[in-house]
Amino acid sequence: MTRIVSVTARDVRFPTSRTLDGSDAMHTAPDYSAAYVVLKTDVGDHLEGHGLTFTLGRGTEICVAAINALAPIAIGRTLESIVADMRGFWRAITGEEQLRWIGPEKGAIHLASAALVNAVWDLYAKMERKPLWKVLVDMSPEQLVSCIDFRYINDAITPAEALAILERMAPTRAEREAEMLRSGFPAYTTSVGWLGYSDEKLRALCRQAVAGGWSHVKMKVGQNIEDDVRRARIVREEIGPVRRLMMDANQVWDVGEAIANLKHLVEFDPYWIEEPTSPDDVLGHATIARAISPIKVATGEHCQNRVIFKQLFQANAIGFCQLDACRLGGLNEVLAVLLMAAKFGIPVCPHAGGVGLCEYVQHISLFDFIAVSGSLDNRVLEYVEHLHEHFLDPVKIQDGRYVAPQAPGFSITMRPESLREFEYPTGPAWRPA
Amino acid sequence: MTRIVSVTARDVRFPTSRTLDGSDAMHTAPDYSAAYVVLKTDVGDHLEGHGLTFTLGRGTEICVAAINALAPIAIGRTLESIVADMRGFWRAITGEEQLRWIGPEKGAIHLASAALVNAVWDLYAKMERKPLWKVLVDMSPEQLVSCIDFRYINDAITPAEALAILERMAPTRAEREAEMLRSGFPAYTTSVGWLGYSDEKLRALCRQAVAGGWSHVKMKVGQNIEDDVRRARIVREEIGPVRRLMMDANQVWDVGEAIANLKHLVEFDPYWIEEPTSPDDVLGHATIARAISPIKVATGEHCQNRVIFKQLFQANAIGFCQLDACRLGGLNEVLAVLLMAAKFGIPVCPHAGGVGLCEYVQHISLFDFIAVSGSLDNRVLEYVEHLHEHFLDPVKIQDGRYVAPQAPGFSITMRPESLREFEYPTGPAWRPA
Repeated sequence: MTRIVSVTARDVRFPTSRTLDGSDAMHTAPDYSAAYVVLKTDVGDHLEGHGLTFTLGRGTEICVAAINALAPIAIGRTLESIVADMRGFWRAITGEEQLRWIGPEKGAIHLASAALVNAVWDLYAKMERKPLWKVLVDMSPEQLVSCIDFRYINDAITPAEALAILERMAPTRAEREAEMLRSGFPAYTTSVGWLGYSDEKLRALCRQAVAGGWSHVKMKVGQNIEDDVRRARIVREEIGPVRRLMMDANQVWDVGEAIANLKHLVEFDPYWIEEPTSPDDVLGHATIARAISPIKVATGEHCQNRVIFKQLFQANAIGFCQLDACRLGGLNEVLAVLLMAAKFGIPVCPHAGGVGLCEYVQHISLFDFIAVSGSLDNRVLEYVEHLHEHFLDPVKIQDGRYVAPQAPGFSITMRPESLREFEYPTGPAWRPA
Repeated sequence: MTRIVSVTARDVRFPTSRTLDGSDAMHTAPDYSAAYVVLKTDVGDHLEGHGLTFTLGRGTEICVAAINALAPIAIGRTLESIVADMRGFWRAITGEEQLRWIGPEKGAIHLASAALVNAVWDLYAKMERKPLWKVLVDMSPEQLVSCIDFRYINDAITPAEALAILERMAPTRAEREAEMLRSGFPAYTTSVGWLGYSDEKLRALCRQAVAGGWSHVKMKVGQNIEDDVRRARIVREEIGPVRRLMMDANQVWDVGEAIANLKHLVEFDPYWIEEPTSPDDVLGHATIARAISPIKVATGEHCQNRVIFKQLFQANAIGFCQLDACRLGGLNEVLAVLLMAAKFGIPVCPHAGGVGLCEYVQHISLFDFIAVSGSLDNRVLEYVEHLHEHFLDPVKIQDGRYVAPQAPGFSITMRPESLREFEYPTGPAWRPA
């Protein structure tokens, strides 16, 4: 038996605001950060589970406080008992009867749940000596369904429907697994178009992306429409008419504004418009989607839980599902959304970038392709090239595709020296110059 | 000029779980608590602004951390500059570009925003030497509209529409104010039906409520349908066929379950069914509302922001709007929801109980009646009799109605000795016996 004996939460921040990497219309100077969890166990071989939730700098300490509040629910449990009842464990974390008041299933407490839940999955995968995606691929449809809390989504997908989706794909899992090991998962790059970059830098980065073999690039929009049009023209000039161009407004528009602004951007043939308005506005997204068809709406990085995704699917509000591995309450809830997306026929293109998100979501997209959707049509996985050097098992990109990770775990373990260097506020990186 | 020089946040918890006051189907043993804010100023007369956000015990420390994270936005500002641009101040608090990631406008960071924003309003009302409701009643329609951030709700209500609603009611404000001062605002009681109470206690409390002149009582449901039916029968027997009976499921049902269970409860003629399912499920509430009509759906205490309420109105999902004064981001966002409710013709019956919520919402309902809705039809304000003794200006109930408060401020200032006694974990109330 492997018992969890401690939960440690750390505040780790990278000073990305100094270069405006990651800047967008809503977040002009983020410091990419993480509330980072380490689960220690009572087995002798230094086996640990690691997980994190991504943040933008200030506020990381709030997520750390939330992880500490959840910790007593995990401490003392055995990994075996958790694995035997993943649904129950998830509900114990997300439904704690006093803590749920400050959510429920949203905000700091849900971000903290994600870090903790993913750390448990990391621990499990390390125990199994497999990369997390492979742990999932080796689970039976029944085992996978037993990880999911269907509360509040039964009206969109029943456990029996989820099982049927997984069973349909089970006989052919092996061939898709072989394909992924051979070719990897297709990616797109967001590194070219941060809003804080000059036109010259934007143009240079587009050329670099084309030379690097990228078939999809994403740019930020939403500061003002004239700038958006000028920048979109530069990008389209550089990438040509065939490569795909995604646009990301990071929630700055109202519903009517989004529809009006898209009229100016349609000439640049956007593949999708991402986060055109409030992430909470299911009906607003549906209105936008109807108005701008056939351009598709994408959202998800700020969608708090499976209940919001359920409604986005039910209302035909999105053409792409951009779930986030640590905005949702960790992997268990991600599984729920993957299965709903499959039922509603919506491709899942997870949100990545930040710090650690690429590391997380490669496992999710591999599993989705192998065991849930069975398709690569309209599936591309976000890639941003910052901050991978801090991870022990960083993502590998080859010819614009994610190479399937092989090391045991969820790929989210940071280098000890990075944790020390960037710990906030005590690490050397944060000492006054 | 009055400058804010410090923001202090305290963790105050009342051990209500020891008596199961406040128990419901989702929260079986809450400790009613508050993350409590004090704004100090540089004026000499000890003028302070007080505010709180309500919590259930564990997790209060997370809201305290969130208030501390927001504090630098308020410190150093003058009250005059804030009052001159209430909308800008609200957006500065709720849109802080790093902190918004852990919301946006939801969870711990939004609860903290509410405490801070309401503390500013308390300070302002104390400066004006008026109860808060009277400060609002004395503001012009233009001034009130200028407090509201219309971002994300422009498609449901424009500033011009909001202005028109307020202007229509302005000429007759004085007569409704006189009526409120004379008769108070109608209340209902939730104190009879907590889920942890025995049948005998339930029956005794119903008799007491009838004797006390209450015309509306609310009971908790949702633990299991047989118990719900038995308890509903007891309540209906005691209150007779004319008094109104509300039922509150506290989010325990799925959409289908809610519809099925309501079929068993309809014989007891519920006035509304409150929180039948997830507070995030706009479409689910709309489905339930269609299925159980003419019984009406009520929700709101867990509705995170104006965007969720907008959709509940747009989708015809609720018959009663139960906004919460510190779940929404404080009074500015409450004003937005009051005006949308007026436009859509939905009565507002704010959530109260907890600790301090009755103190808060009396001001909101008085203002709503006097300046926004102009109607008492289907408006009743929740009342729960616990914990008022901790406030300097506690609510007063007379003949089942809230008496309009007269003391300057938002009525939320706690007694210093209560703050000391119940501060967690250092106060005497929390010391091991």
